[in-house]
Amino acid sequence: MDWLDKVAWTADGLVPVIAQELGSKDVLMFAWMNREALARTVELGEAVYFSRSRARLWHKGEESGHVQKVHDIRLDCDEDVILLTVEQRGHEPGIACHTGRHSCFFQRLEGDEWHSVEPVLKDPKSIYR
Amino acid sequence: MDWLDKVAWTADGLVPVIAQELGSKDVLMFAWMNREALARTVELGEAVYFSRSRARLWHKGEESGHVQKVHDIRLDCDEDVILLTVEQRGHEPGIACHTGRHSCFFQRLEGDEWHSVEPVLKDPKSIYR
Repeated sequence: MDWLDKVAWTADGLVPVIAQELGSKDVLMFAWMNREALARTVELGEAVYFSRSRARLWHKGEESGHVQKVHDIRLDCDEDVILLTVEQRGHEPGIACHTGRHSCFFQRLEGDEWHSVEPVLKDPKSIYR
Repeated sequence: MDWLDKVAWTADGLVPVIAQELGSKDVLMFAWMNREALARTVELGEAVYFSRSRARLWHKGEESGHVQKVHDIRLDCDEDVILLTVEQRGHEPGIACHTGRHSCFFQRLEGDEWHSVEPVLKDPKSIYR
């Protein structure tokens, strides 16, 4: 059996993917892959997602330079979620978020309000030319 | 604005949720919440998910005793994914997976095969009576 067939793809042919940083173990982002994206990720050793909004493969960092070197690929018990361990490259500390922050999970629930609790490390205007 | 309205729920009224362990920072599991599940999670201080297969609220640990005490709730940049920081209770070390393993992400891609690389800490037969 092909290793790609082991993944329980959604009806749309996708699988949710969590990217966790090597070392810090911070959860950086969440995205989707299709079969081709996962195959390309393994081939390149860099995260390639499927952008649902643009309906195409998205080699993370293709515009920003914030590439994710993949160290480990895990599948969960139901075989319908993937966990990547990545090295977030192109900036120190790593920037995974399009807002210029380290992680996409920068809004924290405090009482009954969401607060931004992570600094912008780089102006998005200078990330995306 | 209600803090629950800030979440970009799917057409089905759900949001994907990642549970990460406090301290170890291990990613334990991935599940879904609806509006009521998220409200209950905050109210109880324990993770309540929405089981899509059973189409009902699922207070994690209700059968197994492996409750997740919630320490932190984050929302991502697109406001459509939630990250919980949890203390995995009821067993030491924590068991989040229904297979009796610490984490649901126990299958690792090695070459072109998925290998189970995490031990079963407790026989699922003795977890679910």
